[in-house]
Amino acid sequence: MLVAGGSGLRMQSDIPKQFMELCGLPVLMHTIRLFRSYDADIPILVVLPALQISQWEQLCSHYCFSTPHQIVAGGETRFHSVKNGLATLPAEGWVAIHDGVRPLTSHATISACFRDAERYGNAIPSISVVDTVRETTGDNSHALNRYRLRLIQTPQVFDLALIQEAYRQDFFPEFTDDASVLEKAGHIIHLTEGNRENIKITTPLDMKVAEAVMTRQENYFLNNCAI
Amino acid sequence: MLVAGGSGLRMQSDIPKQFMELCGLPVLMHTIRLFRSYDADIPILVVLPALQISQWEQLCSHYCFSTPHQIVAGGETRFHSVKNGLATLPAEGWVAIHDGVRPLTSHATISACFRDAERYGNAIPSISVVDTVRETTGDNSHALNRYRLRLIQTPQVFDLALIQEAYRQDFFPEFTDDASVLEKAGHIIHLTEGNRENIKITTPLDMKVAEAVMTRQENYFLNNCAI
Repeated sequence: MLVAGGSGLRMQSDIPKQFMELCGLPVLMHTIRLFRSYDADIPILVVLPALQISQWEQLCSHYCFSTPHQIVAGGETRFHSVKNGLATLPAEGWVAIHDGVRPLTSHATISACFRDAERYGNAIPSISVVDTVRETTGDNSHALNRYRLRLIQTPQVFDLALIQEAYRQDFFPEFTDDASVLEKAGHIIHLTEGNRENIKITTPLDMKVAEAVMTRQENYFLNNCAI
Repeated sequence: MLVAGGSGLRMQSDIPKQFMELCGLPVLMHTIRLFRSYDADIPILVVLPALQISQWEQLCSHYCFSTPHQIVAGGETRFHSVKNGLATLPAEGWVAIHDGVRPLTSHATISACFRDAERYGNAIPSISVVDTVRETTGDNSHALNRYRLRLIQTPQVFDLALIQEAYRQDFFPEFTDDASVLEKAGHIIHLTEGNRENIKITTPLDMKVAEAVMTRQENYFLNNCAI
């Protein structure tokens, strides 16, 4: 399930970031193709703000984008969007919930997350932290032990019944990802190694970074994503 | 003071990362030029591993690099390198301690840090955290409130007497930056807004990112750094 709820606010653009063109194709199409190339049979569900669905359909037509996927209208926040998406899925099996604006996750990361989720009930890709991190408390702040910190990515893979149950909780603003929803429901979160290229595209700088990575991986994309 | 202690380990290269060529010039030369272009009179002290000094001198000759700077031999860890550098400085005034492999800080960030340090005794550039962060504890982990977290950068600017005094402490492995040394000595850390482009170049991906940013800023570099 790909969740794409962004506006163009931080991108200083009228175009929602998931629709911005990156190496010749809207970001969200890259993300869809990556999952399709990972598994030709995986069902792909895209959750989009209701007001963007017709624009998306026009883009699909404009770019002759024919990779099969289903569309579901999102909700007020990411939490409500994921909840809407989960409501359309069966109560058995596994779901990978992925940010539509992360076109640079890898087949290896997706595969590792599905493998670990089958074993632990969930698998959350994460990477080590390079920079020093401080936690602010009022006017003061203190350094955290960065060797204990992990930056969290997606796809986050879950046992469908467990994550659907977790999403029956009330919404909290602290829910910044799906793992935090599952954690709040009392489950232990399993961390799996992610890939550092797997950035979330939210600023114009991120677009430049993604372009640079894609250009470097050109052969990879030609070989794996030309579907 | 520019601290450059890296080997090429994470860069999968024999060349130390601070010497790798980025847009036609070793990374460290970009960093030196940025500070020189910020202030034509600022004294620049570069702390380098003793074993890399002759290689650096050859590079300066090869690239006809004539921006004046002083060299000091570093120590076993970053802490010891900074301590060596501080020992050569007077006990009055201000010092900006900066990672040699951060060529993309901005004049605005440097200026804001000097301004705030004069007011608060220190100023540490930091940016908000975009990703979810989890803290691990043994086999488990929990989500942190990301709105309270700050990613820490350099240049970190200090009252010289205070930071020299703080560096008289014993070394702790938790000292991942200079602010953590000052904090341990009992001082309150002042956070100043940094700039998101100001990445620390440690991996081949970071080189691609820096290239992308520099290419975008080409006019900026031509106008400000051609010294």
